[in-house]
Amino acid sequence: MAKRVLVLNGPNLNMLGIREPKTYGSQTLADIEQMIATEAAALGLTVECRQTNREGELCDWIQQALGQSDAIIINAGGYSHTSIAIADALRAVALPVVEVHLSNIYAREAFRHHSYISAVAVGVICGLGATGYKLALRALAEKL
Amino acid sequence: MAKRVLVLNGPNLNMLGIREPKTYGSQTLADIEQMIATEAAALGLTVECRQTNREGELCDWIQQALGQSDAIIINAGGYSHTSIAIADALRAVALPVVEVHLSNIYAREAFRHHSYISAVAVGVICGLGATGYKLALRALAEKL
Amino acid sequence: MAKRVLVLNGPNLNMLGIREPKTYGSQTLADIEQMIATEAAALGLTVECRQTNREGELCDWIQQALGQSDAIIINAGGYSHTSIAIADALRAVALPVVEVHLSNIYAREAFRHHSYISAVAVGVICGLGATGYKLALRALAEKL
Amino acid sequence: MAKRVLVLNGPNLNMLGIREPKTYGSQTLADIEQMIATEAAALGLTVECRQTNREGELCDWIQQALGQSDAIIINAGGYSHTSIAIADALRAVALPVVEVHLSNIYAREAFRHHSYISAVAVGVICGLGATGYKLALRALAEKL
Amino acid sequence: MAKRVLVLNGPNLNMLGIREPKTYGSQTLADIEQMIATEAAALGLTVECRQTNREGELCDWIQQALGQSDAIIINAGGYSHTSIAIADALRAVALPVVEVHLSNIYAREAFRHHSYISAVAVGVICGLGATGYKLALRALAEKL
Amino acid sequence: MAKRVLVLNGPNLNMLGIREPKTYGSQTLADIEQMIATEAAALGLTVECRQTNREGELCDWIQQALGQSDAIIINAGGYSHTSIAIADALRAVALPVVEVHLSNIYAREAFRHHSYISAVAVGVICGLGATGYKLALRALAEKL
Amino acid sequence: MAKRVLVLNGPNLNMLGIREPKTYGSQTLADIEQMIATEAAALGLTVECRQTNREGELCDWIQQALGQSDAIIINAGGYSHTSIAIADALRAVALPVVEVHLSNIYAREAFRHHSYISAVAVGVICGLGATGYKLALRALAEKL
Amino acid sequence: MAKRVLVLNGPNLNMLGIREPKTYGSQTLADIEQMIATEAAALGLTVECRQTNREGELCDWIQQALGQSDAIIINAGGYSHTSIAIADALRAVALPVVEVHLSNIYAREAFRHHSYISAVAVGVICGLGATGYKLALRALAEKL
Amino acid sequence: MAKRVLVLNGPNLNMLGIREPKTYGSQTLADIEQMIATEAAALGLTVECRQTNREGELCDWIQQALGQSDAIIINAGGYSHTSIAIADALRAVALPVVEVHLSNIYAREAFRHHSYISAVAVGVICGLGATGYKLALRALAEKL
Amino acid sequence: MAKRVLVLNGPNLNMLGIREPKTYGSQTLADIEQMIATEAAALGLTVECRQTNREGELCDWIQQALGQSDAIIINAGGYSHTSIAIADALRAVALPVVEVHLSNIYAREAFRHHSYISAVAVGVICGLGATGYKLALRALAEKL
Amino acid sequence: MAKRVLVLNGPNLNMLGIREPKTYGSQTLADIEQMIATEAAALGLTVECRQTNREGELCDWIQQALGQSDAIIINAGGYSHTSIAIADALRAVALPVVEVHLSNIYAREAFRHHSYISAVAVGVICGLGATGYKLALRALAEKL
Amino acid sequence: MAKRVLVLNGPNLNMLGIREPKTYGSQTLADIEQMIATEAAALGLTVECRQTNREGELCDWIQQALGQSDAIIINAGGYSHTSIAIADALRAVALPVVEVHLSNIYAREAFRHHSYISAVAVGVICGLGATGYKLALRALAEKL
Repeated sequence: MAKRVLVLNGPNLNMLGIREPKTYGSQTLADIEQMIATEAAALGLTVECRQTNREGELCDWIQQALGQSDAIIINAGGYSHTSIAIADALRAVALPVVEVHLSNIYAREAFRHHSYISAVAVGVICGLGATGYKLALRALAEKL
Repeated sequence: MAKRVLVLNGPNLNMLGIREPKTYGSQTLADIEQMIATEAAALGLTVECRQTNREGELCDWIQQALGQSDAIIINAGGYSHTSIAIADALRAVALPVVEVHLSNIYAREAFRHHSYISAVAVGVICGLGATGYKLALRALAEKL
Repeated sequence: MAKRVLVLNGPNLNMLGIREPKTYGSQTLADIEQMIATEAAALGLTVECRQTNREGELCDWIQQALGQSDAIIINAGGYSHTSIAIADALRAVALPVVEVHLSNIYAREAFRHHSYISAVAVGVICGLGATGYKLALRALAEKL
Repeated sequence: MAKRVLVLNGPNLNMLGIREPKTYGSQTLADIEQMIATEAAALGLTVECRQTNREGELCDWIQQALGQSDAIIINAGGYSHTSIAIADALRAVALPVVEVHLSNIYAREAFRHHSYISAVAVGVICGLGATGYKLALRALAEKL
Repeated sequence: MAKRVLVLNGPNLNMLGIREPKTYGSQTLADIEQMIATEAAALGLTVECRQTNREGELCDWIQQALGQSDAIIINAGGYSHTSIAIADALRAVALPVVEVHLSNIYAREAFRHHSYISAVAVGVICGLGATGYKLALRALAEKL
Repeated sequence: MAKRVLVLNGPNLNMLGIREPKTYGSQTLADIEQMIATEAAALGLTVECRQTNREGELCDWIQQALGQSDAIIINAGGYSHTSIAIADALRAVALPVVEVHLSNIYAREAFRHHSYISAVAVGVICGLGATGYKLALRALAEKL
Repeated sequence: MAKRVLVLNGPNLNMLGIREPKTYGSQTLADIEQMIATEAAALGLTVECRQTNREGELCDWIQQALGQSDAIIINAGGYSHTSIAIADALRAVALPVVEVHLSNIYAREAFRHHSYISAVAVGVICGLGATGYKLALRALAEKL
Repeated sequence: MAKRVLVLNGPNLNMLGIREPKTYGSQTLADIEQMIATEAAALGLTVECRQTNREGELCDWIQQALGQSDAIIINAGGYSHTSIAIADALRAVALPVVEVHLSNIYAREAFRHHSYISAVAVGVICGLGATGYKLALRALAEKL
Repeated sequence: MAKRVLVLNGPNLNMLGIREPKTYGSQTLADIEQMIATEAAALGLTVECRQTNREGELCDWIQQALGQSDAIIINAGGYSHTSIAIADALRAVALPVVEVHLSNIYAREAFRHHSYISAVAVGVICGLGATGYKLALRALAEKL
Repeated sequence: MAKRVLVLNGPNLNMLGIREPKTYGSQTLADIEQMIATEAAALGLTVECRQTNREGELCDWIQQALGQSDAIIINAGGYSHTSIAIADALRAVALPVVEVHLSNIYAREAFRHHSYISAVAVGVICGLGATGYKLALRALAEKL
Repeated sequence: MAKRVLVLNGPNLNMLGIREPKTYGSQTLADIEQMIATEAAALGLTVECRQTNREGELCDWIQQALGQSDAIIINAGGYSHTSIAIADALRAVALPVVEVHLSNIYAREAFRHHSYISAVAVGVICGLGATGYKLALRALAEKL
Repeated sequence: MAKRVLVLNGPNLNMLGIREPKTYGSQTLADIEQMIATEAAALGLTVECRQTNREGELCDWIQQALGQSDAIIINAGGYSHTSIAIADALRAVALPVVEVHLSNIYAREAFRHHSYISAVAVGVICGLGATGYKLALRALAEKL
């Protein structure tokens, strides 16, 4: 059976294509989710994409992934740097996680250099724009 | 056309008049919103006031302001000091923002001295109680 | 009239029995809430248990406790370490609060050693597993 | 009798209109003091404006305000961040103080984020340019 | 055979009822030890209480507990925050330890927020006054 | 003409397959370089792989890439965390750089969480083992 | 009745005249205690001098001062910088305390700059050698 | 010839008797200077007292003491904690210095715990009110 | 027309030749100013030298340099490390600035390692004694 | 005459062979002291071994070594990291000191990385188990 | 005999004229070395210039200067901020050293503000471009 | 077969006897290596000594020890405090390592108090001069 990957995007990622195009490019989240779907299909993966601005909802979705997904790709946006709750949810479900950031968070403000999620992820990909999601899918395809 | 200002209040500000009256006074949030409406009318501004205890909902409302409001006045309460997500939402919509705090946060606990929102705001007004909202409206009236 | 105690559990505590059993044991949250109910009855207390993954909802519930509850027992999970909003909500309602943690947070990662809630609580009980809730009820039974 | 407000400007504020116009605008200090006088008159306040580059002279003037002024508006410029002596002088006279900064100090270099004066002020207004002084007058007019 | 619990109180706890009654209440240590004895009896535990102002004597007593006690309840007072030696003694005997503090140390001076003992304890109970010792006994009664 | 990618590996990466297999796997550097060559060919890229334990030699090679390579993939091993010289060399040649780490450096010792190279890289990929190099090639293939 | 002053010297002060004469001079502790006795007599004070190397004994003596002494002069030597227990004992007896140091601790190693005792003392005298004890007696003579 | 002592008081000490009487008492600076003169006469010392709010003037006076005074007593008020210039002036003239503070600076805000002057002083006396100046004179009388 | 250079010396530099000769040498400030005048003449520069112990006066002189001088050489002594006001004055006039220190501040106490002026200066010369001023003149002669 | 070496062991070292055998091995302190005696005899040294859990007693013994011993070997256990008093006692007697730790303190918890004793010791030997004492004796045998 | 000066340039300085011209100008290292040779000749100094990207080679060259050179001018580039080894080599040969930086390192990233070399240098010259080397030669010409 | 020990000395240790004799004594490295050879022979060990100023070369030699040596003694000089690469090389070969320092690094500058190598070594010997190498050999002779 095809492996199922849950792709979670956090706060403000629904503003892509609108928000700070110099930093984030002109693609919308819909464009990126389409690209992800195409890549997943090519890799023989089932993929489901969701976005929310709410920390608690991200926790809910991660918890619900238990038994429903085989891996998680997460870009938790601003919550990456502040949310122990999300990292704990990921710890709880114990699925392989790849963390993605569109921009290079290590080249930005100091408060973006640390992510609570990184420590519970298998791997981290950042700064490579929407391509990062595709690379995360490939990494999981090899791993699963 | 009248300029539209969105006034957002964050967690626990719905407890005004109930919560720690020595620090926050006896006015309720409804009183303050009434006062804001009156002041806005006097300044020829359209104003809409909302309150929520939820970080994600504040993000939603800020995002929805795009094209609907010309400026934002925000008192994010306790989220001021912890929420990168809200500050990112404000960055994303790129509207002029005035941050208001009822109490003088710089004269309180150290963890209230830093606000992620301050760095994305045009200006900050604090310690002047409910008057702070009126002053913020005036500042925006001059600016817009 | 029987004193009413509100028992609040925060993010990922609904995963008990599933999540990291080495750290948290095999009891489910339902088991624990049953145990709490039994203990409360024995102590002549009325108890209501709720759980949510959402910081804002915890704030809502705390605010609603005003006039509805005589004390609060809270295990805010990961939000303990990051949420000023929840601590402010507890300050606002000014009810006696006992903070409970299942695991000994002082023997875990450094980022779990500080809780914003501790400073507004009457007392803190941690590391004693589900028994901690029973002890918190007893402490409140003596106090109320 | 009209309430008397002392408006103190510290080092380099006499360079306004000359100094870093991108940050501080093209108004001169004389322009701003004229604007302050007009606003004060409209509010029924008596106002006196002074500027000096000298920390000790600011202390002298603050001390002399005892019995001569009913409130102080102060923009201590660079001394805001380094002078305990000025903050102690304000503590000594125990008049209501509003601190004003033309630029948003929280969006500038880290060494400008802390002001010794903030902790002794009633309120702080920053980032709103010369309008900040007018808002400070209004706040004091309501308060006095 | 009844399980044996050693209850150790550190420096200045012999001053209870005398020392800072606002913080510590009016019960004397003798009162509390009587209460502990009663509670232990009710729980079927053997208990022995000792107090000393001396760090080294606490180490001695902890070491002597090896083979003589089944668990330790310790309130090391001021040594909690400074003594690696006591924590090492507890590590050495490897008995279950519950740390108790009468006051809520997390709501007091910053130097009281960290305890070397917490990291070697099974659990921590603080802020619940003399009741804390009773709760600690109960927790151990369940555990042993 | 095919784009040329220089792949640089730093200290101790020649020990792969020998060194700490639990952390780094059993593949040797030769295995990985073979895999890189295959992937590069598939992507239509020319690739050259080099390894050294010497910080200065890494600087030399980076400088020599000017005009010889179109992009650099670098895993500077332990120098990532300590070498300003290597980061300056990358700044000097101003080629697109992707930083790769085999292990998830953010889940290891604190001194591995910061890399001077990250700030000058386009993107960072870590924790995905040798696959990371393949993903880096793909990212560059898209970008170049 | 003559006011009674307890003079406590802590670890290594019995080595005076032997230990590091460049820093501490050639007077022995016996010399200093004689000088203290003479000065006390001249001021109409009763004085008792004790020295110990033991932190716990200092705590004992401070506690025993309750009802036996009207004030305490203390030079806790190395314990000044590390002992919360001694400072808590002083808090517990709530007598006026003057802290004395022979050398100027603020001109020595950084770890000697902070004393837990200073915060509970009425005053601090340091760097004035054995004269410091005489000055402390005078200060207490005025105060008592 | 009588030894000459220069007594320097810094910013806001001219407000004594007016400023924060709970912290500083009701004596005016004139009262204290009178008391100092009387004590100096009794000790056979010549004394000159000066006060200024200006850091630079304190430097001037210290420099002028060279050849005019045999020792300096200084209470630099708020400048104690911020002025390297004053400490350097004291270093330059190389006279014996006793630093005095009326209040116990170690029991106040953290920013008052460090004084640049302490490191260049012979001794420090604090928390003993105006008596501190008398003690400083005695210490110098013994020393000179 | 000859370029005009303003040479400003701050607190305690008038003590040169008197103050700490081991650190600062035996030349007086007059000697150095004479040497500066000679060097300036040789380089075809007009030079004016001033010294003050007062931070505010340094600000005044810097401000007055606008239109009167083409460059500034400044040795702000102890104010280098504490004065944002002076650095802001230099920012305001926007003339080329060379900072000079006689001693090597990086080899002295830690609090001398940071200068607020360095960040607004074109260059910094330190540790080369009075020669540093001559080198600064040369650097400006090349630059102007 | 044979040189006399005093070997001092601090808190919990009497638990060797009992305490945490994975870290400290199965030898008892008696075994080690026997081994030390044998080695000392072989080296022509007189040796005396003592152990105590009490910081003050270690100070006493160090002071008594004056004139009785020619050198000290000390393993102050947990007091190494917290006791200024012991380090001051060693400073006072000014005998050559070798500090020994059984385990490699630099590979353990951060709070064990700093020892106040190291700075007053001639040398430090750690991580080499009981052999460390033998090496310390040899080092002293060469030195004395 | 002419005094011999060794001029050492560290990593990436061979990229001058290529690397970040906005920061470092368009002169090549060969241009600068030519300029240095000319200046040295004018000053009657013998000069030898070397550059390497290797920390160890810089150490070798510094060691070899013993007996071969009378002074060293060093711009260690990125190693300035990270290399204790180079600073130790300079300490070992004990020749007069002038540290040069082309850019003003105090106005750049925080990690460039500290140089291990500064503490062992006679003086530091930075921010004055290639002129800095000429000034360093002059300073040495005066000194030698 | 005799156990083989590799003795590695890092930067500037070839300057022994020349460099700072007060700190390091007058023995040359050749003297010490001779002494090491003699001691090794006496212990029945084969020993090979090497020195280099190059971090990368130390890494090379450590890697080459795999299968060639049974243990390593290393004094990495200044690299001890800055080189993760060397520590990683030691981790990779997983041989027993004893770290030696001639001087007592804990009694020197703060930047010498931490060594990356200590955490991967079996033990650390410092401050005992060249004797330290002999003691390291003995420790390894016992261990191997």
